[in-house]
Amino acid sequence: MPPVIALLTDFGTRDPYVGIMQGVILTRAANAVCVTLTHEIEPGDVAGGALALLAAAEYFPKGTIFLAVVDPGVGGERRPLCLRSGGCHWVGPDNGLLWPAAAALGTPAAFQLASAAHRLPRVSRTFHGRDLFAPAAAALANGVPAEALGPPISDPVRLHFPEPAERGGRVVGEVLAIDRFGNAITNLRPEHLGDPAPGEAVFTVKRRTIRGPVTHYGAVPAGELLAIVGSLDRYEIAVNRGSAAERLGLRRGDRVAARRR
Amino acid sequence: MPPVIALLTDFGTRDPYVGIMQGVILTRAANAVCVTLTHEIEPGDVAGGALALLAAAEYFPKGTIFLAVVDPGVGGERRPLCLRSGGCHWVGPDNGLLWPAAAALGTPAAFQLASAAHRLPRVSRTFHGRDLFAPAAAALANGVPAEALGPPISDPVRLHFPEPAERGGRVVGEVLAIDRFGNAITNLRPEHLGDPAPGEAVFTVKRRTIRGPVTHYGAVPAGELLAIVGSLDRYEIAVNRGSAAERLGLRRGDRVAARRR
Amino acid sequence: MPPVIALLTDFGTRDPYVGIMQGVILTRAANAVCVTLTHEIEPGDVAGGALALLAAAEYFPKGTIFLAVVDPGVGGERRPLCLRSGGCHWVGPDNGLLWPAAAALGTPAAFQLASAAHRLPRVSRTFHGRDLFAPAAAALANGVPAEALGPPISDPVRLHFPEPAERGGRVVGEVLAIDRFGNAITNLRPEHLGDPAPGEAVFTVKRRTIRGPVTHYGAVPAGELLAIVGSLDRYEIAVNRGSAAERLGLRRGDRVAARRR
Repeated sequence: MPPVIALLTDFGTRDPYVGIMQGVILTRAANAVCVTLTHEIEPGDVAGGALALLAAAEYFPKGTIFLAVVDPGVGGERRPLCLRSGGCHWVGPDNGLLWPAAAALGTPAAFQLASAAHRLPRVSRTFHGRDLFAPAAAALANGVPAEALGPPISDPVRLHFPEPAERGGRVVGEVLAIDRFGNAITNLRPEHLGDPAPGEAVFTVKRRTIRGPVTHYGAVPAGELLAIVGSLDRYEIAVNRGSAAERLGLRRGDRVAARRR
Repeated sequence: MPPVIALLTDFGTRDPYVGIMQGVILTRAANAVCVTLTHEIEPGDVAGGALALLAAAEYFPKGTIFLAVVDPGVGGERRPLCLRSGGCHWVGPDNGLLWPAAAALGTPAAFQLASAAHRLPRVSRTFHGRDLFAPAAAALANGVPAEALGPPISDPVRLHFPEPAERGGRVVGEVLAIDRFGNAITNLRPEHLGDPAPGEAVFTVKRRTIRGPVTHYGAVPAGELLAIVGSLDRYEIAVNRGSAAERLGLRRGDRVAARRR
Repeated sequence: MPPVIALLTDFGTRDPYVGIMQGVILTRAANAVCVTLTHEIEPGDVAGGALALLAAAEYFPKGTIFLAVVDPGVGGERRPLCLRSGGCHWVGPDNGLLWPAAAALGTPAAFQLASAAHRLPRVSRTFHGRDLFAPAAAALANGVPAEALGPPISDPVRLHFPEPAERGGRVVGEVLAIDRFGNAITNLRPEHLGDPAPGEAVFTVKRRTIRGPVTHYGAVPAGELLAIVGSLDRYEIAVNRGSAAERLGLRRGDRVAARRR
């Protein structure tokens, strides 16, 4: 089974940076299969990258190497990191990016990338994706154990997404992400409300009240607001055949409250 | 020969949805080769996706599995579908998306995806690309016959592109798509005019008259309008080193007429 | 070791053109591994494509086939080309696009694509990426020598990037590219200034003076201008956690001067 390397960056797709990383990988691990998660994380948006990694982790084969670079601190004090948990590895900067996904699959072991054998001969101060992280991922793809990449560390940066809170009989959470369709993915999960049946809850966002959840987008007329259990098993605020983000001017961090009827 | 899975969606590339589908595929069919057709179909634009699939079908190897998701009716009544024709398979929603490409390669056999063995254990109401279609494509890549995915059906949704009509000595058609370069791809084909030699036809669009076709973009000065037989064997309205769509304000559905001189 | 084909075009990712090229490749070279450098070169921007190819060349495995199409002259007089140097091949239009990268790896041998066996049976006038270049790249991936693709030529189009000049005690260069982060990549290299230590040089751009280089982006406060040796071993003008291009209204061709302090 060829090793899978799943890539996520904030490099965009206009520049050849991501292709260059794949060139480095294939130079060192010719049979690796590279898969793109996304390269359009907003520049420097560590939390956005962490959420995308978290959403993807459980759907990849055991043994997958997640190579993620959202790295505003490149070249400075932040450490280059490898996490291992649940039979998978995560490689990237030690700034919290890798933590939620790795922690979702198990208790991560952490290693600081330090081996000169598993980096390019010359390491720039601006492109560790190419010079440090791609070679480390290639080494893991070749079966090199994480222990050979550098010393274990006990204090990797841990990023935690905001958790909803109970307040006045309601659960108050927030928007974690807006997706391409304008759906607002919240941190509210069915378990927070005791998994209400369709129509048995009320969601409040931007002073609008939405009865839900619905079973599918088409359960309301085209153009209407709805709340639904999305693909990440979180409640999403959406518009059937439209964009909830546009309709309500929603952004990440906006408050969303919910209660049972 | 590793099985090829060609992907087309309206998911965009900002979110990890397409990568997640590939994770599901590689978990179940480790040697599949995934190729992107595009993920930037306008959200819900079934006809646009169908045209892109049609343009690509004949250029892929026999045995290719086309996995296409433009699915505004996800989670509702529309059926999950597999078509087979010309040695290839198409997997996606039964909303017409798959029909033109499959019908271009032969007479499609149709199957409704129903086998619990070939879907994820838990099927969401919002992401059938991940939960139903990717596992079905992986099964086909593993050699599972379409018959094992579900019962045959006789009434898949058939989508047909608008055909030009003769009117007053002219052939009247329309713009089917605008591509990245601003070229307007029409539904007019050389056969509709008896395959005229260069310069032997006249095209009318937005009250502009264009003598053509030309043999190549550079046959007119930079910045000038032209008509040419494009790569899909359809007439395109273009501007040499410019955008016809911008110049004329062209959009899909705009009328284009043509006659021999 | 499966052959690697690295793709670069100005086709964008909205249309299925790039996927179609990969379909042609996989039909003829089933074990080829396709890697995207970028498909978002500005339409017709040959120099921009050439710079991206140059940045990538040295990071790919020996034997890589670079398939590049930025081809405003498609269908006209320009020749279809294969270059070979340093154990790699470059396939695309003979308009200078391929030259800088091929010349960076060695002294290129040049061949005009002419063999009917290594193109599609029917060659359009608008899409040589599909009809000529992809089949030629597939042939190379199958081990066909460049000599079998067509006759050698001695006069391929040579593109040279502008070189800085000394003037009044300063080295005067220009911006070659703006990347996704808004970093302005210049044609000034450390060797032009005798490789100054951090802080030992002064850069002037748009009437702003910047002391540098710095060792990493985070060496200045967030939001401040800086000059740094970038990943292409050229000086870049950047803003820590921001965009230099936005801040200064920088564009390709803008003048950047530097001198030692």
